[in-house]
Amino acid sequence: MRKALEMACQGAAIGEVPVGAIIVKEGMVLARAHNQREHTNDPTAHAELIAIRVAASSIGDWRLIDTTLYVTLEPCSMCSGAIVLARIPRVVYATSDPKAGAAGTLFNLLQDKRLNHQVDVTQGVLAAESSRLLKSFFRDRRS
Amino acid sequence: MRKALEMACQGAAIGEVPVGAIIVKEGMVLARAHNQREHTNDPTAHAELIAIRVAASSIGDWRLIDTTLYVTLEPCSMCSGAIVLARIPRVVYATSDPKAGAAGTLFNLLQDKRLNHQVDVTQGVLAAESSRLLKSFFRDRRS
Repeated sequence: MRKALEMACQGAAIGEVPVGAIIVKEGMVLARAHNQREHTNDPTAHAELIAIRVAASSIGDWRLIDTTLYVTLEPCSMCSGAIVLARIPRVVYATSDPKAGAAGTLFNLLQDKRLNHQVDVTQGVLAAESSRLLKSFFRDRRS
Repeated sequence: MRKALEMACQGAAIGEVPVGAIIVKEGMVLARAHNQREHTNDPTAHAELIAIRVAASSIGDWRLIDTTLYVTLEPCSMCSGAIVLARIPRVVYATSDPKAGAAGTLFNLLQDKRLNHQVDVTQGVLAAESSRLLKSFFRDRRS
């Protein structure tokens, strides 16, 4: 999660909402990403979605078996849906998202038994650091 | 929707699950896509997500204001989330998806008042044709 926070900081430095994600398989980092929506004009360019695409490309398989995705903010509906589609078995996130969180807050798409894949979810890891980074970013942007 | 079905057929011809999507703005087609998961090894390569990325790139804005997305199958959670993120105002889909549909069947992410954008949804347009195409694809794949 420390590496994911570093990615989030890199995003903040260029004016992107500071969310970072890392995908790890057997101790090896397959992908690291931060939000890129503003720089790419791509509404799907969330850290998790980018990391999933990079990780799948790096192993040449759309199934991200035996991986863990670490992300500094609770995934939204799009990213939670992508996590399920990619069969990621474990997600660790830092702070929850009261506005759009789909991994337990507004929805719980990662653990819905009607879908064909469920995810082991851990939350709260380095939550204070991530929350502080997000608040500071939005405070600076308003001022 | 006829154009979206043509895209779905193109997908089927190369072994992809036959789902097609078109994004239209003021009568002009901004993007057309079919599923590409198998060929790209990208778990996020659903027709809608690809079309959204192409459309945003073509207009240079992540907000797809005044657009309509036509898709031959009810969007999943990932694609519904992306539709909300891209602020697409209207979605028309052909047939519903009992296994993963997130635009009214399993979830209704497009019209959830807690999110910061709601979508006008029309369903059932050329539903029989789309359903027939999907069933035929999966029947052929099993045989």
